[in-house]
Amino acid sequence: MGKLARGVAVVGAGVSRFGAFKEKTSRDLFVESFQDMVNSVDKGFDPGEIEALYLGNFSSDLFEGQGHTAPIMAEWAGIIPAAATRLEDACASGGVALRQGILAVASGAYDLVLVGGVEKMNNLPTEKVTDTLAAASDTLYEASAGFTFPGLYAAIATAYMARYGITPEYFMRVGIKNHNNGKLNPKAQFQTTIRDLLEGRKAKLAAQGKPVPDWQDELDFLRDDSANPVVAWPMRLFDCSPITDGAACLLLVSEEMATRFTDRPVYIIGSGQASDYPLHTRSDLTSLGSARLAARQAYEMAGVTPRDIKVAEVHDCFTVAEVVATEDLGFFAPGEGARAAAEGRTARSGDRPINTSGGLKAKGHPVGASGVAQAVEVFLQLRGEAGARQVPGANLGLTHNVGATGGTCTVHIYERR
Amino acid sequence: MGKLARGVAVVGAGVSRFGAFKEKTSRDLFVESFQDMVNSVDKGFDPGEIEALYLGNFSSDLFEGQGHTAPIMAEWAGIIPAAATRLEDACASGGVALRQGILAVASGAYDLVLVGGVEKMNNLPTEKVTDTLAAASDTLYEASAGFTFPGLYAAIATAYMARYGITPEYFMRVGIKNHNNGKLNPKAQFQTTIRDLLEGRKAKLAAQGKPVPDWQDELDFLRDDSANPVVAWPMRLFDCSPITDGAACLLLVSEEMATRFTDRPVYIIGSGQASDYPLHTRSDLTSLGSARLAARQAYEMAGVTPRDIKVAEVHDCFTVAEVVATEDLGFFAPGEGARAAAEGRTARSGDRPINTSGGLKAKGHPVGASGVAQAVEVFLQLRGEAGARQVPGANLGLTHNVGATGGTCTVHIYERR
Repeated sequence: MGKLARGVAVVGAGVSRFGAFKEKTSRDLFVESFQDMVNSVDKGFDPGEIEALYLGNFSSDLFEGQGHTAPIMAEWAGIIPAAATRLEDACASGGVALRQGILAVASGAYDLVLVGGVEKMNNLPTEKVTDTLAAASDTLYEASAGFTFPGLYAAIATAYMARYGITPEYFMRVGIKNHNNGKLNPKAQFQTTIRDLLEGRKAKLAAQGKPVPDWQDELDFLRDDSANPVVAWPMRLFDCSPITDGAACLLLVSEEMATRFTDRPVYIIGSGQASDYPLHTRSDLTSLGSARLAARQAYEMAGVTPRDIKVAEVHDCFTVAEVVATEDLGFFAPGEGARAAAEGRTARSGDRPINTSGGLKAKGHPVGASGVAQAVEVFLQLRGEAGARQVPGANLGLTHNVGATGGTCTVHIYERR
Repeated sequence: MGKLARGVAVVGAGVSRFGAFKEKTSRDLFVESFQDMVNSVDKGFDPGEIEALYLGNFSSDLFEGQGHTAPIMAEWAGIIPAAATRLEDACASGGVALRQGILAVASGAYDLVLVGGVEKMNNLPTEKVTDTLAAASDTLYEASAGFTFPGLYAAIATAYMARYGITPEYFMRVGIKNHNNGKLNPKAQFQTTIRDLLEGRKAKLAAQGKPVPDWQDELDFLRDDSANPVVAWPMRLFDCSPITDGAACLLLVSEEMATRFTDRPVYIIGSGQASDYPLHTRSDLTSLGSARLAARQAYEMAGVTPRDIKVAEVHDCFTVAEVVATEDLGFFAPGEGARAAAEGRTARSGDRPINTSGGLKAKGHPVGASGVAQAVEVFLQLRGEAGARQVPGANLGLTHNVGATGGTCTVHIYERR
């Protein structure tokens, strides 16, 4: 990893509402996030100045039967003839789109670049979505052997439990925390806490005259098979990110142009990307090599250490993935991530707030958009615009976006000076 | 388009055999092209030094049920943990992969980048391939109205014929020329001239005791519905590129490192990329706006004019597309491209050799690989390594790669100093 030829800043950021929108296309969602981004640019700008679009999208091919998505999104955003390119690295598609946008500006080719991400997943029934996502595994050796992603991450979870002697409750606490954050995010798919769900379920059963379980707290609720069925043990329903339709956009400019757009730019000071072998070939399942390497690249480029990071959005496609991420990023020692989550250290009020947006778990996971949406949350946090979920004094943030089981990982670091 | 922060050179190039290989996967084809590239590096190198892979691929999702293709290709090439990213812009996927590889090196992030392209199309029956490719149209307005790509390019061809008063024979001559070139390319899918096919058909009919048509020349043969059926008038079978499995690779390095790998580097001196609206919304079908803009960007960056270009590989997915390309690139005035082809000016012996490789028509068109394979041909031509199809004195070359009906176009210019 060499030094970039010039610096890059984020001067605008937007997201669509995340959720299940059967009546919308990816075009609608993309335009919604684009307009949200345009509105966020303090000093305004002419979208016709945008020179290029880097679009993260996992598979509009399989979800909507639409390939060649980038120029279509460019058309709907009104930025033709800007060069429009789709990037795909499974659920890290948004992160690699961001990285290519950064490199394109750094190269001198462009001054003004739109980075987008979009996925429209709810066209298909759930089981078909799971099959579609399994195309991101090494299909000759994993999907063909019966693995889908809940199973692959369950393998990571059982390996982690065996190695560090923890119980599934540690993972459940990650989900509880992310739902607590999602409740405060008006764009999130789930704006309900697990406590809300517990109380709601009790009230419903009582109203129906049925026996009401004696759930004392969220863990009681989450341990109950009727409330929280096992998907692939130890991963239960509330350990899994949902099927989400959504889009996100960022406006990148060269560092020297940033104040033309805003007096509060967010600078990208670190970027890393690495690959790894498919899960079935690895000797250790409790850490992702691509995440460790991408993080090292990003920290070195930024000249900061894990303890400098004030807020981080990490790839919690499953609760275990957040635990592993916080270790791979150097926030906690190997084996300490689960305990740190259980102790509340990753809550908004903790010493290491993780996924203030609600994360993939509660905010939702439109797979090709997630890496971009993570950057939107950090942008808001660093500018003090995260509303009820604001972390005071957040001046340095990080995003961590994983493709499949770590075949790809990107890490980015952001600073508000 | 700004000036790139540093120069980029191609120091290695390779292609797999192109054809229909039902027993192979895209992994096999990619590795074949990768090894061909490694062997082409004059002074040798350690593939473990490769820092990133930019992979063009239209839709392994739809063709093979495999997404997240880039890290899988990186694994099979033995270059994990290099950052591996897939790029998709329909049939321009290879061209945008090349462009992102260039920008990544220019940015300073990487010194040594692998650009690849791959498509494995022959898993599916022909009609299913045609449907799959139609996903690259604007599906809400084009495929849904019954258009597949032969129909879309037939619309371009009829508009061109009406505007410039030419007959389908002008397009046929493009196919004859490209088959003449393909015969000299040992990697081409079709290494037979139209004359060979004509003679072969005559001999076969005679041997069967059937009446032998009185075909005087190739045009007689190509006008005969029994020999050359109409696909979408005026595009007949031999106006259409075939369904091809294949892969291609390029090794890019920063300009200052180039002589570590070879004393004969090929420098990339121009690069352009632009987008356009879908075909159904355009007022003029006889020119692609994205191609004109991408060409202008590339010429300006290179500081050369169309008349300086000695060899060009252009996107002849259909014969009419080559005619339009030679006009969009400024080689011929609007309306003169068809006549120039008919006069032999674009043959190897003409003043403007086009598609010496055989083009997409005869070399074959593995859609995500084509943009990269075009660059491989120019690399060979500029180094005097194109064998029987060598154009003497070729020191400046160009590639032109189109996605769909011009939703995307990339243009690159190469120099051997």
